[in-house]
Amino acid sequence: MRIDLNCDLGESFGAWTMGLDSQVIPFITSANIACGWHAGDPLVMDATVAACKAAGVAVGAHPGFPDLMGFGRRNVAASPQEVRAYVQYQVGALQAFCAAHGVVLRHVKPHGALYNMAGKDEALARAIAEGIYAINPALVLLGLAGSKIIEAAAAIGLPFAREIFADRAYEEDGALVARGKPGAMIHDEDFAIARVVRMIKTGTVEAITGKVIQLQADSVCVHGDGPKALAFVQKIRTALKSEGVAVQAL
Amino acid sequence: MRIDLNCDLGESFGAWTMGLDSQVIPFITSANIACGWHAGDPLVMDATVAACKAAGVAVGAHPGFPDLMGFGRRNVAASPQEVRAYVQYQVGALQAFCAAHGVVLRHVKPHGALYNMAGKDEALARAIAEGIYAINPALVLLGLAGSKIIEAAAAIGLPFAREIFADRAYEEDGALVARGKPGAMIHDEDFAIARVVRMIKTGTVEAITGKVIQLQADSVCVHGDGPKALAFVQKIRTALKSEGVAVQAL
Amino acid sequence: MRIDLNCDLGESFGAWTMGLDSQVIPFITSANIACGWHAGDPLVMDATVAACKAAGVAVGAHPGFPDLMGFGRRNVAASPQEVRAYVQYQVGALQAFCAAHGVVLRHVKPHGALYNMAGKDEALARAIAEGIYAINPALVLLGLAGSKIIEAAAAIGLPFAREIFADRAYEEDGALVARGKPGAMIHDEDFAIARVVRMIKTGTVEAITGKVIQLQADSVCVHGDGPKALAFVQKIRTALKSEGVAVQAL
Amino acid sequence: MRIDLNCDLGESFGAWTMGLDSQVIPFITSANIACGWHAGDPLVMDATVAACKAAGVAVGAHPGFPDLMGFGRRNVAASPQEVRAYVQYQVGALQAFCAAHGVVLRHVKPHGALYNMAGKDEALARAIAEGIYAINPALVLLGLAGSKIIEAAAAIGLPFAREIFADRAYEEDGALVARGKPGAMIHDEDFAIARVVRMIKTGTVEAITGKVIQLQADSVCVHGDGPKALAFVQKIRTALKSEGVAVQAL
Repeated sequence: MRIDLNCDLGESFGAWTMGLDSQVIPFITSANIACGWHAGDPLVMDATVAACKAAGVAVGAHPGFPDLMGFGRRNVAASPQEVRAYVQYQVGALQAFCAAHGVVLRHVKPHGALYNMAGKDEALARAIAEGIYAINPALVLLGLAGSKIIEAAAAIGLPFAREIFADRAYEEDGALVARGKPGAMIHDEDFAIARVVRMIKTGTVEAITGKVIQLQADSVCVHGDGPKALAFVQKIRTALKSEGVAVQAL
Repeated sequence: MRIDLNCDLGESFGAWTMGLDSQVIPFITSANIACGWHAGDPLVMDATVAACKAAGVAVGAHPGFPDLMGFGRRNVAASPQEVRAYVQYQVGALQAFCAAHGVVLRHVKPHGALYNMAGKDEALARAIAEGIYAINPALVLLGLAGSKIIEAAAAIGLPFAREIFADRAYEEDGALVARGKPGAMIHDEDFAIARVVRMIKTGTVEAITGKVIQLQADSVCVHGDGPKALAFVQKIRTALKSEGVAVQAL
Repeated sequence: MRIDLNCDLGESFGAWTMGLDSQVIPFITSANIACGWHAGDPLVMDATVAACKAAGVAVGAHPGFPDLMGFGRRNVAASPQEVRAYVQYQVGALQAFCAAHGVVLRHVKPHGALYNMAGKDEALARAIAEGIYAINPALVLLGLAGSKIIEAAAAIGLPFAREIFADRAYEEDGALVARGKPGAMIHDEDFAIARVVRMIKTGTVEAITGKVIQLQADSVCVHGDGPKALAFVQKIRTALKSEGVAVQAL
Repeated sequence: MRIDLNCDLGESFGAWTMGLDSQVIPFITSANIACGWHAGDPLVMDATVAACKAAGVAVGAHPGFPDLMGFGRRNVAASPQEVRAYVQYQVGALQAFCAAHGVVLRHVKPHGALYNMAGKDEALARAIAEGIYAINPALVLLGLAGSKIIEAAAAIGLPFAREIFADRAYEEDGALVARGKPGAMIHDEDFAIARVVRMIKTGTVEAITGKVIQLQADSVCVHGDGPKALAFVQKIRTALKSEGVAVQAL
């Protein structure tokens, strides 16, 4: 019984600060570091890799669409070929800072709209998986459990990790319930944690319809963007340990 | 007796095309590939690495300032720390495409204003050399012969290559005569080629003042941005061979 | 009987040149000038406004998505509120150059993906129309004949102009046949011109199904991106005049 | 006896927030609104103009270098022609939001490195002043008292306003003492306020050398980037009123 706690880090840019990175780092096991396209800049990337190294947190790349103004959260109709090259570019850029710090890059988690689009689009998912594989076939592709991203990695033999969300409800097919829908968000922290423990221990979760579905979990997405998120990370970490679940990197 | 012929490639961006890359590639031995900040985009970088591989041209990174609108030709008062991180970011990005194509990245040549500023500024030169060394101490730093860039590489044990210009006059201290000054540009192609041959064979050149100065040459900068430049590359290559100078990568 | 010939101009950016602007200007009556987000930069905008003024060509703004790398041709899932602000920003920027040259800004034509998306999406079309109206209710909104853009302008009392394409087939509902479909492009120039003349004179066109549909035409989109496009502009202009159709700005 | 209190506003960008705009607005009389190149985006610009209108604060444009990553604080070796066009572009963009809100744009204050460079460079100052004049000769150019910016505006008949800084020491020639030098910053708030009152009432200030120099003041630069800055704005406003100095827009 083990689980990884991953968190998006390095989302500051230039004069703008975002996230309580230094405060959340002690409680996570993997960091998804922004690569300059939707957030992050080279100084931030450098500092974030250094901070992760110091804390023993596994470093991953967090590539996104070229949309700084929209924080990479808006769908962009980029082609698979473009997406492949965009991911390679950003992963390579982060790898340079890893090399400079003597850190091994462990994983890649697509960001925002790229994560969502590729999760449902086989061609985009394949472009991402193949692009990563071509750079380094040992990198782990972190994507939504049950999504096209996981399928694409599996299909070509790229290591993958299945991500689950503590605060989101699931449809019967394993998709996240769209944010707008009633019941999409789980606000009760204790209930959310209990769900996560169940997902980890049993590989199942109760969908929003009530039906119990299969869902393998390798990593839980947590946040460090505010005091509330920070408190939740500490809480879930403590709960997992007390349940006998080892919290460790992928 | 040997010399490298280097050329800036991959300067197209999005819908805009620049340079006769495919036509100049057969005549050069090293390519400086733009990394997306002053020119180039991920698709262009990918295609340019592939084209260089196919032709057996050595691949180098050509990092510049974050100034797409100014093509990286305008001085930006970035700090050494910023410049170090900017170079690492761009070198890493290009390395990803090299890895994907099974190509070994050979060298790094700073672009435009970054090349000029670091050529005269010890702190910037040191930042660039150290930034590259931290990523990969086998990379060759290509800079103006006699400049601070070369000194910085030498000081830390990073391989370097000294670049000369066929069409530019030199000051007594080895600096290029500023473009505005009378006599700065050498327009007679045969004279320019004879100068280059002399620099390679004797390690000396006649400065604009008439004084003969020392100038070691490892690589000549050529261009592929138009028919005239293209014709000159072919001409100088032929002349070098007939003079018994081997034209080969660094 | 009159028609406007509009052309996208000012698509160069920084060191990159695009389009034969100076050669096409003598043959068009309206220019859609890129505003720096998908193409164009302030120097290019300034020079293009000046060139249009000198030639008596009506000046319009050509706002696009913030996607320089994709030339504004990729759909971006921006909200109506964002689109409204993006259009206002770009129209205002171009207006500054118009003011500096004593030129009156006449129209706004959304570019690329923004044109296509808003042509089918009522909320985006409304956002564009209202955004323009709020700046200056005398500006003419140029959009695809029969599209949501035209409907939105009409609904709020903003002047509009209906654009037709000489080289594209139409569906029965007045939409352009998607580029991928057989018959989407009309390659026979004489046939294309005859169609345009018919559209102007009769307000009808034969759809790809053979059915004759209504289609009011105020402006024909022409191109100046190459010698072939340039020759076509001259040809259609000559043909229109010989058919007794006045070629004049909106 | 009157003075304007100006403050940089609208420096948020996309998902990043900066500045306590809504809290400082009640205490200032003029706002310098970022125009998207070093900070600000169209949504932020729109909202900031609306907030200033609601509070009766005079709206000005705050154009900067195209350097989002450096927040416009780094010198860029742009030509006067480029600077002229960059300022016009940004002023025009802000004017669109002013027009949409029925607000009259009052002034232009160059930002950061552009402010500093143009303050000492006659050609850049002239480019800015002429660029603004060409758009609208009624706009007020706000620049450092005694700088080239003020001289340039005066030379061509563009209205100008002379800015002073409460927390900065002055050289004998009226220049700000460089930040690195001892005594450059004035940390005692009461002393700073007393100096400002003296500058306003007598048109003189004691330079760092002890010599009393002439310095006409039309506007004091204040900040809203933190609680301390905010408290100071309130304090100086109260002090000015109690000294019989009217606090009102330019």
